[in-house]
Amino acid sequence: MIIIGEKINSTLKAVRPAIETYDSEAIQNLAKLQTDAGSSYIDINAGMFLDDEPERLVWLVNTVQAVVKTPLCLDSPNAAALEAALEACKGETPMINSITGEKERFEAILPLAVKYKTKIVALCMDDTGMPETAHERFSIAERLISELTSAGMKQGDIFIDPLVRPVSTGPHYGVAAIETIRRVKTEYPQVHIACGLSNVSFGLPQRKLINQVFLVSAMAAGMDGAILDPLDKKLMTFIAATEALLGIDEYCIEYLDKYRSGMFD
Amino acid sequence: MIIIGEKINSTLKAVRPAIETYDSEAIQNLAKLQTDAGSSYIDINAGMFLDDEPERLVWLVNTVQAVVKTPLCLDSPNAAALEAALEACKGETPMINSITGEKERFEAILPLAVKYKTKIVALCMDDTGMPETAHERFSIAERLISELTSAGMKQGDIFIDPLVRPVSTGPHYGVAAIETIRRVKTEYPQVHIACGLSNVSFGLPQRKLINQVFLVSAMAAGMDGAILDPLDKKLMTFIAATEALLGIDEYCIEYLDKYRSGMFD
Repeated sequence: MIIIGEKINSTLKAVRPAIETYDSEAIQNLAKLQTDAGSSYIDINAGMFLDDEPERLVWLVNTVQAVVKTPLCLDSPNAAALEAALEACKGETPMINSITGEKERFEAILPLAVKYKTKIVALCMDDTGMPETAHERFSIAERLISELTSAGMKQGDIFIDPLVRPVSTGPHYGVAAIETIRRVKTEYPQVHIACGLSNVSFGLPQRKLINQVFLVSAMAAGMDGAILDPLDKKLMTFIAATEALLGIDEYCIEYLDKYRSGMFD
Repeated sequence: MIIIGEKINSTLKAVRPAIETYDSEAIQNLAKLQTDAGSSYIDINAGMFLDDEPERLVWLVNTVQAVVKTPLCLDSPNAAALEAALEACKGETPMINSITGEKERFEAILPLAVKYKTKIVALCMDDTGMPETAHERFSIAERLISELTSAGMKQGDIFIDPLVRPVSTGPHYGVAAIETIRRVKTEYPQVHIACGLSNVSFGLPQRKLINQVFLVSAMAAGMDGAILDPLDKKLMTFIAATEALLGIDEYCIEYLDKYRSGMFD
């Protein structure tokens, strides 16, 4: 699983003050903890700082890459903030989170992905609004894949986000996301998935339980990447167990290693 | 979910002595607890008593149906034991667990299912041995469904067991079972699944964790019935959460009820 660690995010009440006060130690601690927990990318988001998002995002880039080599996932719809952050990125190829099928956003962000040869999260949404069905999501995904590759991007650099909506507001939203993942991975095996987990449980009690069963169901449908909290040990044990179940972890070698290391205690 | 409670089984070390000593109270307690926990069927198995299985199975039938109305799942490959037990069954239609594609077993058990108009678990196994792939399993399932319905049984009375084998012995066995379930439910929507959960984790530590992720993955593939321990509260919360996720439990009404009743504590 390609894990995108979601903790350094200005929308999180516990994290926002650290960005506000330029608390490097707190941010660097989150970067190190998430790296140690197995993150493939560290997401950084300064979107709550409307007045100076570019400057805040650049500070996050510099602060994080001073302590870890984990590539960054630059989380913003704002092209100016993204370009400033991309200029500051060193080391491994960063990821842009995200482009959509919305004309204005697509046209603003595509040139950055091409110029900086980034990975990119492509969210199944366009100017017609939020999709209802798996079919609508997959149509948007197909168009995004087609337009991104026409512009020179590789399929393997594209991460489709199926746009997960809460099952408390629509009973079909869980299955719609799962079926979108299955179809994208069946028809475009090289394209990755980068699925946000927590929206699905919005409005319900025991959200972690719903997030866990969604994670497992989506992995069984072929999900190979997710935006999640890698410090949630229970969630990480579910990833290990599901990889063993699905034979991704052949003969359960990593599962047994993790068990012996005390991860399941 | 159609839950077949698996606790009254002579292969379970904790339960065998109760069958051996004709401890009605212990057996009736398990029957009541499993019914209260939401079992649709109570499985009874006296297979470890080779010398007098028919008499023991009849005793289990009488003992259980003296206290609960939950229909029974008669768990034996032995036609004589099954026929004696079927004669003793009152009330709701019992289930036979199980028939297979093995010629001798098929021919011995089919007449009982037809005569007593039972439900039946059909296990994906035949005289060529244990299947490896989903394709082999589905071929056996197709033949079983065809032969059972030709003999007059309804599709809705057939419960396919995909024959789950341990992922510790073959990395493909988890996916093979899941894909068999998906194909059976896609091509025969009226046919049910009755899948044993615990084989999948044989030989691994933290078996419950593997069983949980298998349950969720199989439900996401369409599994609508399972042979499991309904007294495992954590497993039952995963069923509730997965039914909410998949929209089987529309707008999460049962999930919320179960949460309010304290099931998730």
